[in-house]
Amino acid sequence: MFSIAERINGMFKDVREAIKNKDPKAVRELAIKQTEAGASFLDVNVGTAAADPIDAMKWLIEVIQDTVKTPIAIDSQKFDVLKAGLSVIRNEVLINSTKADPEELDKYMSLSKDYNASLMCLTMDKCGIPQDVERRMEFAMKIVEKAVEHDFDLSKIYIDPVLFPINVDQKQPAYMFDIFTQIKMISDPPPHRNVGLSNFSQGRKEKRLLARTFLTMGISYGLDAAVMDVLDKELMDAAISAEVIMNKHVYTEDYLIACRK
Amino acid sequence: MFSIAERINGMFKDVREAIKNKDPKAVRELAIKQTEAGASFLDVNVGTAAADPIDAMKWLIEVIQDTVKTPIAIDSQKFDVLKAGLSVIRNEVLINSTKADPEELDKYMSLSKDYNASLMCLTMDKCGIPQDVERRMEFAMKIVEKAVEHDFDLSKIYIDPVLFPINVDQKQPAYMFDIFTQIKMISDPPPHRNVGLSNFSQGRKEKRLLARTFLTMGISYGLDAAVMDVLDKELMDAAISAEVIMNKHVYTEDYLIACRK
Repeated sequence: MFSIAERINGMFKDVREAIKNKDPKAVRELAIKQTEAGASFLDVNVGTAAADPIDAMKWLIEVIQDTVKTPIAIDSQKFDVLKAGLSVIRNEVLINSTKADPEELDKYMSLSKDYNASLMCLTMDKCGIPQDVERRMEFAMKIVEKAVEHDFDLSKIYIDPVLFPINVDQKQPAYMFDIFTQIKMISDPPPHRNVGLSNFSQGRKEKRLLARTFLTMGISYGLDAAVMDVLDKELMDAAISAEVIMNKHVYTEDYLIACRK
Repeated sequence: MFSIAERINGMFKDVREAIKNKDPKAVRELAIKQTEAGASFLDVNVGTAAADPIDAMKWLIEVIQDTVKTPIAIDSQKFDVLKAGLSVIRNEVLINSTKADPEELDKYMSLSKDYNASLMCLTMDKCGIPQDVERRMEFAMKIVEKAVEHDFDLSKIYIDPVLFPINVDQKQPAYMFDIFTQIKMISDPPPHRNVGLSNFSQGRKEKRLLARTFLTMGISYGLDAAVMDVLDKELMDAAISAEVIMNKHVYTEDYLIACRK
């Protein structure tokens, strides 16, 4: 699966301080540690406290690219911050994320194509997040239609149906499984299916157990990407095991090691 | 879910010795520990080494019933051993198991009805275990037809599609998920869906991780019973978490404790 490592985020104190003092040490360490843990992408989010978010995004990306070759996911709700980030990207990149309003999809898909970037699309619009399967699937259909219109490679589209926290609505996880199943059948190749995993159980007493349990269940329905804590070894082991059980990797006695390579 | 605790089995040395010496200590301890761990049933299997399997089964059941009130699953391939076990049962009981040959189903369903017992039915016959979904489902259909014919309460039927070890055939787990989904729709109420979980990863390096990952994935498809190691706390925690995620129990911060009660 595509593990999008979430830790380089200005929401965390060490990254916030690094940005503030232009001290690359903590960022470099996180880039190396998350890469070694098996990250497919390093998510980069300047957070809300950066004095100059455009400058902070460019600086973070440069520091990371000087350290590792892992593809970056530029994570911002601000279009100009994404664009600035893209201007310094050297390798493969994912834009995280756009909403599914038609004009937003047009804008983000054009930008993504200009930089040959993959694109994360949320099944929501400016009016908010639908709480049911049907309306989320309507957004998923619109995303795929727009991608076809833009001649966008569908294997570079990630659809995120916006997973709610477990304590908000316990019906939502099963809705997600239904949505993953449906998105897999929407096109050939289908778009990827992503969730923001930490949001599911953030702040909860059993947050790590709940996150890895949801992840393994989701993988059996075709979930193949997640913004997640790749430094949680049990979480990564569970994801790899679920993929082996789904016959995505060959089983060997040392599959945990083999699949990380 | 219905957790069928597997540890009172003559295959294990402590139980084998207990049977041989008619020393109830180890059996009592296992009955208590597995009950405290949340076992729905205590599986009782005399193993292959008992000099007098009928006597051994009756003795084990008596020892357990003198210790705890947990329902027993009488586990034997020998009809006379099952029958002897049933003759001393005081509480709820599960017969584990019968194959799906019509004459076997008739014999075991009649016996089960005589003792108001639940019945585990394997989707296999004297010719062996089918390796595909379709033929296993044919057996499942036959089991349900026979149950209807015998006016058997379908909520007391457990269907076990016979999970293969992960290293034997990696396509099998996904087949199981398909089968659980189909069995759920076979009747109203549907029969329970069971697996022998330990068989999946027995002897494998990551056996516990593989077992709990399969279990949580299976629960999302309707797996609701397993012969399993209830003394593996991580396995039980994972099962409870999966059921909370499927909205089978109310989420609270202390759901692991609440669901055990």
